[in-house]
Amino acid sequence: MPREITGFSNPLVKRVRSLREKKLRKREGLFLAEGLRILTEAREQGILPEMLFLALGTRPHPLAQLLVDAVEAAGGEVVLTTPDILGKISGKENAQAVVGIYRDRLTPLPALDRNAAPIWFVAQAMRDPGNLGTLMRIGDAVGAGGVILVDDCVDPFSVETVRASMGALFTQAIAHADWPDFLAWLRTGPGQLVGTSLNTDFDYQEPHYEAPTFLLIGNEARGLPADYEAACDLLVKIPMMGRADSLNASVAGAVMAYEVLNQRRRG
Amino acid sequence: MPREITGFSNPLVKRVRSLREKKLRKREGLFLAEGLRILTEAREQGILPEMLFLALGTRPHPLAQLLVDAVEAAGGEVVLTTPDILGKISGKENAQAVVGIYRDRLTPLPALDRNAAPIWFVAQAMRDPGNLGTLMRIGDAVGAGGVILVDDCVDPFSVETVRASMGALFTQAIAHADWPDFLAWLRTGPGQLVGTSLNTDFDYQEPHYEAPTFLLIGNEARGLPADYEAACDLLVKIPMMGRADSLNASVAGAVMAYEVLNQRRRG
Repeated sequence: MPREITGFSNPLVKRVRSLREKKLRKREGLFLAEGLRILTEAREQGILPEMLFLALGTRPHPLAQLLVDAVEAAGGEVVLTTPDILGKISGKENAQAVVGIYRDRLTPLPALDRNAAPIWFVAQAMRDPGNLGTLMRIGDAVGAGGVILVDDCVDPFSVETVRASMGALFTQAIAHADWPDFLAWLRTGPGQLVGTSLNTDFDYQEPHYEAPTFLLIGNEARGLPADYEAACDLLVKIPMMGRADSLNASVAGAVMAYEVLNQRRRG
Repeated sequence: MPREITGFSNPLVKRVRSLREKKLRKREGLFLAEGLRILTEAREQGILPEMLFLALGTRPHPLAQLLVDAVEAAGGEVVLTTPDILGKISGKENAQAVVGIYRDRLTPLPALDRNAAPIWFVAQAMRDPGNLGTLMRIGDAVGAGGVILVDDCVDPFSVETVRASMGALFTQAIAHADWPDFLAWLRTGPGQLVGTSLNTDFDYQEPHYEAPTFLLIGNEARGLPADYEAACDLLVKIPMMGRADSLNASVAGAVMAYEVLNQRRRG
């Protein structure tokens, strides 16, 4: 049976609101996703929230009812609450009608099955949650396996990242590693590490990309450090015809990933 | 000689702060850009702000000094002010060291020279300033001529759009038109109108794109209206290998634009 909560000072509301802070997300091992579309996407992957919040007093959308049934069948908790509280939980004035609290989905690097997909993103010190979420969404689109976060990246489970991923957070594996650990892991198996760089004239359409291809995307402001570039199997350059010398990080990821995909599609 | 302003209640400060609101930007025909890199980009294009704001009391960066000299030589106004006021003007807590107030750069559609570039973006009801700015940045990268905004789009001169464009706002022409006016203008000259759509199986790598190519990008949430799709010369589909059925609008623009550019590069 759903539980009803209508008070802002309810301890559960306070606890769930605290998940908007990275430190508390980490401590609890939980994160927050919102919107019927994203939660349904997750449900269709067999991923259910531990807690589901819905607005009181309105007849739930049929897809929301499917979520309620699935969460209850799995022993999770369903909470009916006011639109105001939903808004406070999500940090958005116009809260979408459902909010789910999920167990975080970090895969330990050694557990990542690199042969499960032909493309992987490696994001180095990516700072913008919109970029990271968009990269996940691109990964889903090109059939990538996931994103490996290297060095100090933005939290992949922040509300903003989850929102920008449009649900791809639930289809893409997420791992985190320091650069030396990532490199050591990479070299224990097959995998071509490809960096985009301004320090080469090698056009990104020239090489043959080998699967699994690891596409290394540098920090938004500084690009890749020189020693990271040196560790790549390939450094390539996306042509830039104008005055700017770089693309947005997730856009560069998309241009690279579609080139790899298109090569594979041609056989 | 630079003028010094240290009071928040100074009328000029109030007027400039008001440029963060679309209505007042429109009334004044002015907009605000910030950051040495973006302002220098503009200066190198021969575009100078009517007013330039710098922080008082620090020796200006050599590039900022070039801006000061150029603005004064052109009869513009240079204002030295406190970091606090700079922050209030830009709406950012850590204001970047220079803020410029520019005359808006909307090109009337009939004045747009379609043959000046082989690629143009047409953004339909684009709502997100980050997407629009990123699209301008992509346009710069692929050698596009600019962005034609169709229907009710986000303001191309908002602080957020300018920031996301990373200065490409100053290299890309910006026009605005209703859909019927755009179509009428388009058909008075050469130009292939290409839409991306879920309602076709025609792969985006199949067709030969003719210059000037007009890449029509639909609204973030709803995509293109059916009658807009019907008016296209070509409807193509970007392959999606995962669960999601769409890419972020600016990412889709990048994938399309690099395909067109790559065809041209092959000759």
